[in-house]
Amino acid sequence: MFKELNPPSRILMGPGPSDVHPRVLKAMSTPLIGHLDPHFLEIMNENMELLRQVFETKNEVTLAMSGTGSSGMETVFVNLVEPGDKVVIGVNGLFGQRMVDVAERCGAEVVQVTGEWGHIIEPEQIENTLQNNPGVKLVALVHAETSTGVLQPLKEIADIVHQHGALFVVDAVTSLGGIQVGIDTNDVDACYSGTQKCLSVPPGLSPVTFNEKALEVMRKRKTKVQSWYLDLSMIQNYWGEDRFYHHTAPISMAYALREGLKLVVEEGLETTYERHWKLGQALQAGLEAMGLTLHVREGHRLPQLTSVRIPENIEDAVVRKQLLEQFNIEIGGGLGALKGKVWRVGLMGYSCNRRNVLIFLSALEQILSEHGFEVEKGKAIATAYEYMK
Amino acid sequence: MFKELNPPSRILMGPGPSDVHPRVLKAMSTPLIGHLDPHFLEIMNENMELLRQVFETKNEVTLAMSGTGSSGMETVFVNLVEPGDKVVIGVNGLFGQRMVDVAERCGAEVVQVTGEWGHIIEPEQIENTLQNNPGVKLVALVHAETSTGVLQPLKEIADIVHQHGALFVVDAVTSLGGIQVGIDTNDVDACYSGTQKCLSVPPGLSPVTFNEKALEVMRKRKTKVQSWYLDLSMIQNYWGEDRFYHHTAPISMAYALREGLKLVVEEGLETTYERHWKLGQALQAGLEAMGLTLHVREGHRLPQLTSVRIPENIEDAVVRKQLLEQFNIEIGGGLGALKGKVWRVGLMGYSCNRRNVLIFLSALEQILSEHGFEVEKGKAIATAYEYMK
Repeated sequence: MFKELNPPSRILMGPGPSDVHPRVLKAMSTPLIGHLDPHFLEIMNENMELLRQVFETKNEVTLAMSGTGSSGMETVFVNLVEPGDKVVIGVNGLFGQRMVDVAERCGAEVVQVTGEWGHIIEPEQIENTLQNNPGVKLVALVHAETSTGVLQPLKEIADIVHQHGALFVVDAVTSLGGIQVGIDTNDVDACYSGTQKCLSVPPGLSPVTFNEKALEVMRKRKTKVQSWYLDLSMIQNYWGEDRFYHHTAPISMAYALREGLKLVVEEGLETTYERHWKLGQALQAGLEAMGLTLHVREGHRLPQLTSVRIPENIEDAVVRKQLLEQFNIEIGGGLGALKGKVWRVGLMGYSCNRRNVLIFLSALEQILSEHGFEVEKGKAIATAYEYMK
Repeated sequence: MFKELNPPSRILMGPGPSDVHPRVLKAMSTPLIGHLDPHFLEIMNENMELLRQVFETKNEVTLAMSGTGSSGMETVFVNLVEPGDKVVIGVNGLFGQRMVDVAERCGAEVVQVTGEWGHIIEPEQIENTLQNNPGVKLVALVHAETSTGVLQPLKEIADIVHQHGALFVVDAVTSLGGIQVGIDTNDVDACYSGTQKCLSVPPGLSPVTFNEKALEVMRKRKTKVQSWYLDLSMIQNYWGEDRFYHHTAPISMAYALREGLKLVVEEGLETTYERHWKLGQALQAGLEAMGLTLHVREGHRLPQLTSVRIPENIEDAVVRKQLLEQFNIEIGGGLGALKGKVWRVGLMGYSCNRRNVLIFLSALEQILSEHGFEVEKGKAIATAYEYMK
C-alpha cells in the first residue's frame, strides 16, 4: 500500500526550503546517540559556538530551538513579552504580520508600523512611533522579508530603538548565512532564524540568540512564560553547564545543523555573503534583461530571494507548474498582498550556485516565450553570465 | 577546529531516544522537496493515514506536530484549555508533573490526582475527584510513564471520565508503536506521542490525534489559542485539503516518520506488540534472576521500559558510565523522586531485540559482580532466554 520513498529530484529555488547540502544529508543518516550522552553534549556546545560565529555574536545564549523558524519567533515573544507590554512591530510583509499575531497572543499591546509590501520600514517611522508611544518594551523588524524580498537595514533603527530604551528584535530566518546579520555590530538584542534557508539544512530547528540585556528583561519577569516548551529559562539550563533535562533534543537535526554551519564557516562568512550577492545580482540582472520587472527597488533587494512581477497575460500557476513538472525547478508564488502578482525566486545556501541561475533563466525564458511573452532570446543568460565571472 | 561528525556507536537502551532503524536513517538522507510540492502533500497524507493505523483510530485530525513529544503535550493543552477551566491530571511521575505545569501556564485550574512513583492511578481516585469537583473539562493521564515504567490502564477511567462529561486526554509518548494505545477502543479524546521511542525514528516530531468531541470543544473556544505555533485550527488547514501555509514542515523528519510507521505497519501491530511484551518480560525475568528488584509491581509493568532498583552499595553513575564506556550501552538513571534509586532500561522499537536483552544482561552481570554484588553467574541470561524462544 505504501510504496518506497521516492520523491522527485527537485531544484529548490523557492522561498525555502532550499537544497540541502550532500554533506548535511549524509550527517543526517548518522546513527543516534542519546541526548544526554557526553558526546552529544559536545555537539550541542559545538553548535552553540558555530551559531555564535554565523550570528557574529559573543552572546552566551545562542542555541537552536527544537522547532521550525516560527517556533523561534514565538520563543522571542513569549519570553520577552508579558501581558500589557507595549510592542512596536514593522509590518511590510507576511512575517511582520505573523509577529503581530504572535505578540498579541502573548498579551502585548501592539503598535504596527506599516510599509507597502516591497518597501522597507524607514527609520523615521520608528522614531515617530516611539516618540508617540512612551514605554515601548521592544521593537521588532524582519531583516529579510521572505514574502517580498526586501532587505531591511538594521543599524540606524537599532540606535533609535536603544535611545528610547527598548529592545531591538530581529527576524533573521532568511538572512542567516546568506547576508550579514551581525548581531553584535548591529546591536540586535534578540534574534531568531531558521535552518532551511541559507544554512542548507532541512527545516526543523530555529537558531536564536539573546544578549545580556534581553536576558535581564526575562529575569525580571513577573509572570511565568506562557509556553513550557519554549521557556528559555529552562532551555538555557538544558544547553548550559547543568544539562538539566527539559525535552529530548532532535538529535539528527542537531547533526545536520552542525554540518550546515561547518560548511558556512569553512567557506568563510565573507565568501558566502559574496557568493549570495554576486549570484543574486546575476539573477536579478538576467530577469531584467528578459524584460521582467523586479518588485523591490534597487538597494533594498535581497540577493537570496528575488521577487519578480508576473507579466500581464501570463498565468502564475501555469508557469510554476511547468517549471516544476518539466524542469523539476521549484519557485514560490506570491503571498498575501502579492498573491498572483509576483514570483519569488530563491538562491539560498547550497541552492545558490551558478548552475541554478542559468538553468532557471533558460527554463523561464522558454516557458514565457511559449506563452507569448516577447523575449530577446539568450540576453538574460548572457547578462547574468557577465555578473558571475 | 570542528572535526568530522563521528559519534560513538551506541546501543540505546535508555528511556529514549531508542536506536533508529537503518531504513529510517536512509530515508533521512533523501534529498528534499518543497513542503508545498504535490509529492510532499502526498507524504503528509500518507503519514496521517499511517498514524491513524498505529493510533488505531478513524480520527481525521491525526497528524504530526513540528516539535518533540513535549510540544505535543503543549498542543493538547493550549488548544483544549481556556483560562479558568478545571482540569484533572494524574501525577505519578515526571510527565504527569509536566502536564500540570503546562496546563497551569494555559490558565487551567488544576486538580492533581497523585500516586506514588511506580504505582498506577486508580479508577476510584478519578471517580472521587470528579464527584468532588463538578464541571471538570478534561482528565489527563500518562499511558506509559517514562519516569517510572508504569503502564496505566485506560478504558475503565475513560468510561468514568465520560460519565462525568469530561474529555479524556492521554500521553502516549512512550507507548505508541510498542503497546496498544487503541484510541478508538479506549475512548481517548485527545492524545499525543513522540517519534523517538517505539517508532524507531529520531526525536523531532509529535504525533497527535483528536476526535470530533475534542475538535468541537476547540471550535467553541471563546479565547484565541495562546500559541501561534501550536494552534491546531491553523495546523489543520495546513494538513487538510486547503494546504493553507502555516509553517514550513520538517521535511526530512516527515520522511523519517513515514519510514518508521511503515516498519510498524509492515511488521503488523499485533506482532510488534508481542515482540515488545515478550522481550520486556525476558529482560524483567532476567533482572530478577540476577537478584535485582523491579520497581513496579507485576501487572503494572511496561514491557518497553523497565525500572529496576539499584542495589545497596552500588553506585548509580559508576555503573552507567561503565556500561556506556566499556560496552557502548546507554541506559537511563532515575528522575525526580527516583533519582539515584532506579535504572531505567528501554527496549523500544528497533532497540527491542533479542540481542540487546542478552548483551545488556551479560554486561550488567559482569559490572555488578565487579562491584561486589553477588550474582549467580549465567542465571539471568538462561532465564531471559527461556522467555525468548
